[in-house]
Parts: sequence; C-alpha cells; structure tokens
Amino acid sequence: MIKTGDTYTHEIMFKQADVNMFAKISGDNNPVHIDPEYAAKTPFKHPIVHGFFSGAVFSKVFGTLFPGEGTIYLYQDMKFLAPVYVDQQYIAKFEVQSVDTQRHIGKIICSLEDTNGKVYISGVAKLKHDIEFVE
Amino acid sequence: MIKTGDTYTHEIMFKQADVNMFAKISGDNNPVHIDPEYAAKTPFKHPIVHGFFSGAVFSKVFGTLFPGEGTIYLYQDMKFLAPVYVDQQYIAKFEVQSVDTQRHIGKIICSLEDTNGKVYISGVAKLKHDIEFVE
Repeated sequence: MIKTGDTYTHEIMFKQADVNMFAKISGDNNPVHIDPEYAAKTPFKHPIVHGFFSGAVFSKVFGTLFPGEGTIYLYQDMKFLAPVYVDQQYIAKFEVQSVDTQRHIGKIICSLEDTNGKVYISGVAKLKHDIEFVE
Repeated sequence: MIKTGDTYTHEIMFKQADVNMFAKISGDNNPVHIDPEYAAKTPFKHPIVHGFFSGAVFSKVFGTLFPGEGTIYLYQDMKFLAPVYVDQQYIAKFEVQSVDTQRHIGKIICSLEDTNGKVYISGVAKLKHDIEFVE
C-alpha cells in the first residue's frame, strides 16, 4: 500500500547508444541528440538526451518498481529545466502528494536530479493502481 | 515564422518491434507493453504502446518538423486518455496557442488522435525557437 508522503528514489545513467536508438525508433533525430560535432557548435557543447527519453525514467519506475505492474498512467507533466547528458549519474526522485483511495489514483511529484540535488526535470504524475492506492 | 493559430499534423503508426526496443532502452518492461499473453488477460486485451513512446511523436515533430532543428523543449504535459495500440493509424495534431516573440517561446496544444477524431493523448507544450518564434 502506497500512502501520501511515501518517497522512492532510483539511480539512472543514460548511454549514447540508447539515445541513438531512441532517436531511431521515435524519429526524433534532431542532431543535437546524436551528432557530437553539431552539438559542439550549440550552447550545449555535447549531445543532450531527448526529454522524452530522460523523462521515461518516470515511466520505468511507475511501470516496474513504484507502484509497479498494474499501473495505469493517467497524466504526466515535465518541466525541462536543464540539459541532461549521457554518462552522468542522475537520480529520479518521487514523493506521493495525495492518494484518492476511492478511485485508486495517486498523485506523485517527480524529479530528475544529479548527485548535488540540481533539478533537471520536474513534474507531477497521476497513476491508477487498484492494489497500491487503497485504504 | 510560426504564429498563433498555426496548425500542423503528422501521421504515425507504432510498431511492436519499436515498442519492444523502447521497453529495452528505457527499462520500462512492464509486460502490458510487450507480452501479448499477459496483455490478453488485462482490460486492454492487446499490448499497449508506452505513454512515453506514443507521446514521443510530439518530440519528433517539434525537434525535426515543426518548428524543427533548433527547438529547445521547455515543457510538456500529457493526459493519457485511451490506450494506444500498434499497427493502428494515428494523427498527431498541433495548434499554436500563443507566441511570446520577446522570449521566442511558443505554447502549442497537441493531441494524438485516430482517423475518427477520437483523442488518445492531449497536452500542451512550451518550446523555445530563436528563428521561428519572432515578430
């Protein structure tokens, strides 16, 4: 059972090979993500991870870990606050803001941070889970 | 130059092989996305596309087509309204709600719909583009 105030953290590091694969399967082959020479001429200096790929760590955690299998994703928002790079250590952090035990819906604050607590993505998710979000 | 009221549409079909690859690279290997036998026992009946992979069509369009290269993604929200399946025709639709020509930021309403106009994902994006969002 997951309750208001519960927290969860999950470490993650993105790899260029996976970013390249995301570009291929999503069709988002903007060179800023996959071409080091192009990225070097931008303010980012190095290829940056797609927002939808770095943010997908939220989906990974919700779908497989917290709450895990049985999760139905209802809503997600994301503020992309700073560029996310490959081969850097990040931590996805979660805190349950509220639980509607009648409708089995949890509202969860989520962020992607580095080990110094700098926030790269912040957002809120709403999930349905018939076993975890109960009285 | 992109102005308030401008619209854009982009057809898309998701493939199971790409959903499987997304599960692998994102780590979201919830069986509802990749295991037909498991999905058959859920209300979805068939594997459903990850919200972060179906929603990534917004990222693809913004990063490569409308506005295209040079886009900096600031914000995205998504309401997941109905399950998205592979091998079905969907249309991503975009309408520019407002443009801040001083800060070069556009607010764009986006949706993923089927050919009958049923909405599967709806959301709003905020993008920065120094060439397209100008006076």
